[in-house]
This record gives sequence, structure tokens and C-alpha cells, in this order.
Amino acid sequence: MALIVHKYGGTSMGSTERIRNVAKRVAKWARAGHQMVVVPSAMSGETNRILGLAKELFPGVNTSASDRELDMIASTGEQVSVGLLALALQAEGLEAVSYTGWQVPVKTDSSYTKARIESIDDVRVRADLAAGKVVVITGFQGIDDDGHITTLGRGGSDTSAVAIAAAMKAAECLIYTDVDGVYTTDPRVVPEARRLQTISFEEMLEMASLGSKVLQIRSVEFAGKYRVPLRVLSSFTDWNIDINEEARSGTLITFEEDVNMEQAVVSGIAFNRDEAKVTVMGVPDKPGIAYQILGEVAEANIDVDVIIQNVSHDGKTDFSFTVHRNDYARTMDLLKNKVAPATGALTVLGDPKICKVSIVGIGMRSHVGVASKMFRTLSEEGINIMMITTSEIKTSVVIDEKYMELAVRALHKAFDLEEPAGAAA
Amino acid sequence: MALIVHKYGGTSMGSTERIRNVAKRVAKWARAGHQMVVVPSAMSGETNRILGLAKELFPGVNTSASDRELDMIASTGEQVSVGLLALALQAEGLEAVSYTGWQVPVKTDSSYTKARIESIDDVRVRADLAAGKVVVITGFQGIDDDGHITTLGRGGSDTSAVAIAAAMKAAECLIYTDVDGVYTTDPRVVPEARRLQTISFEEMLEMASLGSKVLQIRSVEFAGKYRVPLRVLSSFTDWNIDINEEARSGTLITFEEDVNMEQAVVSGIAFNRDEAKVTVMGVPDKPGIAYQILGEVAEANIDVDVIIQNVSHDGKTDFSFTVHRNDYARTMDLLKNKVAPATGALTVLGDPKICKVSIVGIGMRSHVGVASKMFRTLSEEGINIMMITTSEIKTSVVIDEKYMELAVRALHKAFDLEEPAGAAA
Repeated sequence: MALIVHKYGGTSMGSTERIRNVAKRVAKWARAGHQMVVVPSAMSGETNRILGLAKELFPGVNTSASDRELDMIASTGEQVSVGLLALALQAEGLEAVSYTGWQVPVKTDSSYTKARIESIDDVRVRADLAAGKVVVITGFQGIDDDGHITTLGRGGSDTSAVAIAAAMKAAECLIYTDVDGVYTTDPRVVPEARRLQTISFEEMLEMASLGSKVLQIRSVEFAGKYRVPLRVLSSFTDWNIDINEEARSGTLITFEEDVNMEQAVVSGIAFNRDEAKVTVMGVPDKPGIAYQILGEVAEANIDVDVIIQNVSHDGKTDFSFTVHRNDYARTMDLLKNKVAPATGALTVLGDPKICKVSIVGIGMRSHVGVASKMFRTLSEEGINIMMITTSEIKTSVVIDEKYMELAVRALHKAFDLEEPAGAAA
Repeated sequence: MALIVHKYGGTSMGSTERIRNVAKRVAKWARAGHQMVVVPSAMSGETNRILGLAKELFPGVNTSASDRELDMIASTGEQVSVGLLALALQAEGLEAVSYTGWQVPVKTDSSYTKARIESIDDVRVRADLAAGKVVVITGFQGIDDDGHITTLGRGGSDTSAVAIAAAMKAAECLIYTDVDGVYTTDPRVVPEARRLQTISFEEMLEMASLGSKVLQIRSVEFAGKYRVPLRVLSSFTDWNIDINEEARSGTLITFEEDVNMEQAVVSGIAFNRDEAKVTVMGVPDKPGIAYQILGEVAEANIDVDVIIQNVSHDGKTDFSFTVHRNDYARTMDLLKNKVAPATGALTVLGDPKICKVSIVGIGMRSHVGVASKMFRTLSEEGINIMMITTSEIKTSVVIDEKYMELAVRALHKAFDLEEPAGAAA
């Protein structure tokens, strides 16, 4: 018997039929003797629907006051979900009670629409668990010091579930979603992609930051900080699958180095095709130039991803960075009409048709030559590398978008990712 | 400048276009210098939709635990509304902030789905009003001593608005709805029905209890208890109608006797066609027999309206009462198979096709012969009276349903209700 946290995504909660299946699955775990805390998302589409109404009524630029109201509105989707799931659990014959974020309470800062969890009081939840109840808690939301409702931003329910698991020292946090685990890469691009039985927390962090949408990145950070054993698994298996089989399915995000030591040097290939590249050519290489360029970009609320500044010659340097493709036109406009005149840059170049491909693996820490193997593989396929960045467990390249699938497949093969690992199912 | 409470019904909040109109109307009042508190209902249909999902998931008999979850779910409709209305007000250039019942807080007892308001803390709301903000508060809901969300039952937003107006000693509480006031009777039955400029609180109470659905009866009780000036008016006039004209429109529910003294003896004709009549014949006339019959009915959760016990002869009496037509079959079954055998009643008779027609008027207190005029009018139309009950300001008769319209029209005419009153618009 253990304390287990289950989290179910919006698709898993998408209809009364699916909610009933979630209830049956949770009931199975409860009947096996576990203390159960469940964090369901809003029914899929619901939050978008009501925020759409909000946008119609307030089309202007968001303020702190309007963000506060958006959180008031958006938090209701999860509130409906917890009530419905508690009822479905009661219909299964279990005692169940639901709580909103403010009832627990889940305390956050006051950054409406993107609040951060500061503390979780588990007294109330523990009392209910001790009394044999299943406790259903809203994800995605909390309450600030002044009693205002806050939300954590998109995907925030993952973070809520992990934070609750951390606060309650749960044995494991199971994230039920519409995929059955974390893959070496996207199976839609590489059919031979293999589900990982385990992945290290650091690798998962890189995969999440690189656009693998399995888990919200902040939930992974949280899991890492508090060492919450986290498992990603499918909510679309039969609810009455054997519980021991279910407990071993999916992908476990782990903190034990030795588990990873047995694994391949590279665990996965991530990619992101929503990027665009811009270069400011021939800017004077003097202190403050990076800020002069990127400060303007940040002020325009444009997120920058990869940033590269080459060594200078003749006192001039080239400064390149990537942005989300949706921000490309706005970025180019800003650079040409504002940044270039102000900095004395010679010209501004751009390319909206690029993508980023990354290899991720904790083994890269202790193995040399991993990056060069990546570059050789791409070179053998005739793929030109435009930009390179590296971190301790990741190497990313920016390439022409049209080579993306080819690059991912070649790298997946080069790093032996399609071979079933020794312990794989 | 005064503190004014506006309440808007679900139809008035039924779309973003309508919410925008509500915002423009409230803005007009705020710009005229009033401190504004607004209580909007859930968007029409929304609460039914989500409670429909709840019913699918929990088709069983409600318990306190399931009622708690229903309140968790049902309270979200109003939460969405206050956020949307606050945004619409901000879009109009006003400062606006919304609060849920628990944020105010509106304290209630713990009777989930039909809670009663116990107290309202107005400190937070007053501070916002003093800072020049429009305050938007959820109706229909509150929080109990243990921090659980409660709802007040259908129509509860009227009660919330009146309770808030009472707590804040508002100058007036304006209930905006889809009719333009209280009429002498239903204009669909009697086209000559006239809108009342004023109606006494006691009369309004009787009208509400008799099925005039303009205001929830508990809101009228509340208004009476705390002497809250209450006005029912239409939300479907142009929002930019002259504010002084708007402030005089609709029907004012008043507590000043002298206003009513000028009015007719009878203020209105109410009716209710959803009733059924049952009679337990020949029960022994002994102490406890009424409880023996009605105790069983109450236990089966069947609401009883009119109750009549005739004088007995030969130690036996007949006991009649009316129930909602939906409960007729269940009531007959209960009486025949359980009550009659237990009490030794001779037989059980029933009639599901009856209706109740009532004349209501505070003038009945001081005028004699009002009831007899009612009976004469019905007699002249050849309508047989099955049951009669009276209160200080009301006389009700139960008649065959097929005569309902005829009876209402004849009484409306007999009591001169279609004549415009001296001060009528």
C-alpha cells in the first residue's frame, strides 16, 4: 500500500464515458489498497471555449486586472472536472471528495495566467485519505496571498500533480495521457521509434524543452527538484488491465544514475519545426551590443531560442538567433527598421524555413565524440548545418526545414535507437 | 450618488453580445456617479448542461457527498459569468473586479444544493467600491464554515443579490430580467393584464409562492426581512435609455403601507396549473392522523401544497391535499398501498387535472367581502370550487384545470385589474 497520485489529461476526461473509465481505473488502484489522489484536467476543448468568450469581450491588450479575470474564468474547467470525477467515483461505490486549488490550498505567487506554486498544505487531503476517501484535486490553479484565484498556464495540471505528489511524498506520480510513454523520437517521423522504459530527469527536461509535448517542462523541473518518481503512461488501455502490468507500463522518469548508465549514450532525438532564423550582419563588436539587439526583441514580447554570436573580424560581428515562426515577420520588421539603424548593422538576413534537431542523452556527459558523430551523420546525408548549440546532455543543430525528417531518421539509426534495449518490453 | 445592486438573469447573460449590453448598462449607472455591485447569473443553459453531465455520471439517489460535488460543479457557471462581465466592463474603460461567493465571503449553512445565507462580509467589496471599482459578485453560491462550496438552489442569484444589497445597505436592488415587471396576472392568459408600478412585499411574497416566476420566493423573504427596496425591470430595453427613466421603470416592491392604501383591494391574480389533488376518504378522526398520512408523504420527498381536512361525521373524516403533478402517480401509489392500509381509510381518490387560482391583495386585510366576491364570480361562470384556502392577504381555490383561463380572466375583470391605476404609466 502506497500513496499514489494519478493525473489525467483533457482528452482522458473528454466525455462522460471517458470520465467513467477514469473512475473505474482509479477505483481499481484504490481497491488494491493504495491511497489515491487524482488530478484531472478540464474536459478537452472546454478551457479554449470559455477563454474564446473572454477574448470576444476583451479584445484589447491584457493587463493584470484582465489576467486576473481570465484566471477566474479559466479555473472553472478543472473545477467541473473534479466534481464530475468525484461523482463518477461515488457511483463506483467509493468515498470521494473534490477540492479546488484554493480549498487545499495550493499557494502560488500572484502572476496571473502563469503563476508559480509556492506551497501546498496537505493537512486536509491527508485527513481524507486516512478516512479512506479518494481525493480529487483541481490541477492548473491555486490561490495567492490575497485570496485571488491564479492559474499556472497551459499544461499546468502536470505541474500541479507533481507538486502535490512532492508535498505528500507520494510513492509515484502517474501521468495518464494520450500517448503510451516517451519515445526515442516522434513515431510519426520515424516508425521505428522505440518507447523508453526509463529516461533520466535531465534528459526528460531537454526533451520537453525541445518540443516533445508529452509533459509540461515545469512539471519536469518540479519532479527533478523534489525527486518525485514520475511515470508517463496511456489512459487508453482498458481500465481493467492487470494493475501490476499497468504499474510497469509507459516510461518512468528516474533519478537513479545507475539505471541510465546501462542505457545508450543518446536517449532520444527531439526536433522543432516551428522556428525561424534571423541574422544581424556586421554589427560593431562592442560591449552591450547583444543587449541592444535582444533587448528590443524582448520588449516586443518575442521569445528567442538559439542565440549565436560569432567571433568578430575587423571589429564587426554577425549576430544570429531563432524565434518562433509566427514571430518571424514581426522580428524582421523590428530588426530592419529599428535595430539596424540604431546599431549601425550592415544588413539583416532571415530564413523562416528552418528547423532544430537535437540529440539528447545523459551518456553524453561521459562519452566523447557524440557531437562529432552527429555532424558526420548529417554530412553523410548532405545536410548543411546552419547553427550549432550544445549543453551538457544535448547537441542541437539548426538545418533547412526540408531535411528535417531525413536528419531525424538518420540520427535515430546512427545512434542505434531502434534497437530494442536489453530490458525493453 | 448611491450604492446600487444590479442583478442580471441567465437570459440577459446568454451571449457575449448580451453580456456587452449588460456592461454598457452598468457603465451608464457607474458614470452617473453610483457605486455599483453587479450579480450576474450563469449564462442561460450552462448550469443545466453541466448538471446533465453530472446526472449521467451519478444516476443514483443523491447523498450529502454527491450534493457537495453537484455544488462544486454548478457553482462554476456563475464564476464564468462574473469573469466575463468584469472583462466586458474593463473593455468599457471601467475598473472592475469579480469575486466568487467564497471570496467575499458569503457564508451559508452546509445544506448543499439548497443552502441558506448566514452572513456576508462586505469589507473587501466596500474597499473596492471606495477605490472606484465596479464589483461583480457570483450569485447562487457561498461557502460553509468548513470551506466547502454551497449553492442556494434554483433562482438563488436573486437571493444573493438581495442579501448583498441588505448587507451593504444599498439604496436599491434592481433585478433585471426578461419581463418588464410584475403584472396583475400572466399577460399570456389575460392580454389586458397591467404592469404594477408598485407591489407590497407581502403581496409579492404571495405572488411568488403561487407560481409567478418573476422572483425567487426566498429573495422576496430576504427583501422583506431586511427592508431592501427591490425593483424588477427589463434587461431588454436599450442599454442607453435615459437613466432616470430606467430608474422608474418596472415594478417596485415596497414596504410603505400608504403606497398600497391607494391601490386596489386585489393587486393580482396568480395561478398554478402544475398541481394534482388527492383525497383519503373515511379515515378515523383521531389525534395523529394528519401526521400518519403526511409523514409518509414527506418521507417520500413529495412536497405538499394545499391541505384541507373537513369536519368529521361518524368519527370519520376526509383528508385532501395537492401535490406537484409530477408526483401524482407516486403519491397515489403510496396512499393506496401504504397509507390506506395503515390508517384504515375507506378509499383514496385523485385528480391530476386541477389547478389553483388565487387572488392576492394587501387591501383584503381591511376590506370585507373580497372572498365572497371571488366565489360569486366563479359561480356566475359555472365553475365548481373543489377546495378553498385563505390567508390574510390571499384567497386560493382549487378548480378543474379546464376552467383555469376562464377563471383568471373573470376574476381579473371582476376586481377591476385591467383599469389603469391613477398613477400608472
